[in-house]
Amino acid sequence: MIFRQLFEPVSSTYTYLLGCEDTGQALLIDAVLPTWQRDLEELNKLGLKLAYTLDTHIHADHITAARKLKMETASRIAHPAADNLACVDMSLQENKPFELGSIRIDPLFTPGHTDGHHAYCVNGRVFTGDALLIDGCGRTDFQNGDAPTLYRSVREKLFALPEDTLVYPAHDYKGRRVSSIGQEKARNPRLGGDKPLAEFVKIMQELKLAYPKFIDYAVPGNLKCGVCPTGVPEDLQQYCEQIGDSLQG
Amino acid sequence: MIFRQLFEPVSSTYTYLLGCEDTGQALLIDAVLPTWQRDLEELNKLGLKLAYTLDTHIHADHITAARKLKMETASRIAHPAADNLACVDMSLQENKPFELGSIRIDPLFTPGHTDGHHAYCVNGRVFTGDALLIDGCGRTDFQNGDAPTLYRSVREKLFALPEDTLVYPAHDYKGRRVSSIGQEKARNPRLGGDKPLAEFVKIMQELKLAYPKFIDYAVPGNLKCGVCPTGVPEDLQQYCEQIGDSLQG
Repeated sequence: MIFRQLFEPVSSTYTYLLGCEDTGQALLIDAVLPTWQRDLEELNKLGLKLAYTLDTHIHADHITAARKLKMETASRIAHPAADNLACVDMSLQENKPFELGSIRIDPLFTPGHTDGHHAYCVNGRVFTGDALLIDGCGRTDFQNGDAPTLYRSVREKLFALPEDTLVYPAHDYKGRRVSSIGQEKARNPRLGGDKPLAEFVKIMQELKLAYPKFIDYAVPGNLKCGVCPTGVPEDLQQYCEQIGDSLQG
Repeated sequence: MIFRQLFEPVSSTYTYLLGCEDTGQALLIDAVLPTWQRDLEELNKLGLKLAYTLDTHIHADHITAARKLKMETASRIAHPAADNLACVDMSLQENKPFELGSIRIDPLFTPGHTDGHHAYCVNGRVFTGDALLIDGCGRTDFQNGDAPTLYRSVREKLFALPEDTLVYPAHDYKGRRVSSIGQEKARNPRLGGDKPLAEFVKIMQELKLAYPKFIDYAVPGNLKCGVCPTGVPEDLQQYCEQIGDSLQG
């Protein structure tokens, strides 16, 4: 399998490119609107054709490139069925493996950051979205997020994967790129070791994070699989800037 | 390829198990004497037969299990030719790939921590020994170590690998298990970014590390591919404790 980890610096999002050497087909996990051209250039360089975009969840910090890439390449939009989006071409759910050439993806229902969140397991790697980050996890205070639910998703589902499974998160804000299930089980300060549920809930309650600055544009845009809403204030234009008028919703 | 990352807690060493699914043969990179039985149990569980042990260099902090495992399983001892050890069955060098079933290992001459140090590249992974650690590197003040040499090994050879290459170090003292070349290039505090040679040399000069407590036993023992020397003081017995009399040299 051809594999690339790509980085979108405005929202510190990792986009993952997975390509099948046999068929020349590729998919992107968590592609971000401002970097859709970079993603296509990478695919072109590798001689791959984009077949699908997948998102792990409805993002609140950026707009997915799913719709834009579909317009540009006729790729299909795959997304967790749990989110029940009308714009989706292919619904994903746990226990229903999704295959693209020789790539097999096993969706894993991992709610808690959002109520529809899924991780994707692919041959020794798990793309954990915002459920599990390196030494951290996504916040649980928006989009029907729920700390006890996230605790169970991480500890009962993700931590049940083999220890050497590589953890590829949707974000890192310190330049870290990869971890493993064994590493997170041992030293994730929020969810690792023998951390009890009550302590995790307390940690999440006390984070006192700022209101997400782009959420009021990102969520409605992502409910439409990647429309950049009108009226985005000037200081947030960089979240949409490269898309052109065609995607203004 | 079957892959396991194993940990030896006395010296905080990672031992890597690589197995070929087609032939059932396996090799171990940097196996450690006190955990030789654990390693064999792991191989047995996986239904693999140990064919080779490889060391990245002559270790100063632990004794290799190469000789003990050879005695127990008839495995062969592979080691960098640069170290010119009489006890070695198979000499490894850069530009001479070593194959075991479907596993192909490309040794990479990476001196600086020791003068004979090699990393091993295996299909998207690099086992970096003590040349490159996660957010760090091995010391350069013993065993013909040399900071400018290590700087060149890391930046010109290891950092020339594809960014998504997984970095598996020989040690970590904080429970981290895996990184990538892209991550280390971007954020290794000693060797990443645009760190100039002079600054790296200064960092290494100013580390003021203690004299390695086991070096006077480990180096002579490892020059014989893993003999536990006689006269190890009581407080260091845990480095040899599980080997029995047969390996007392």
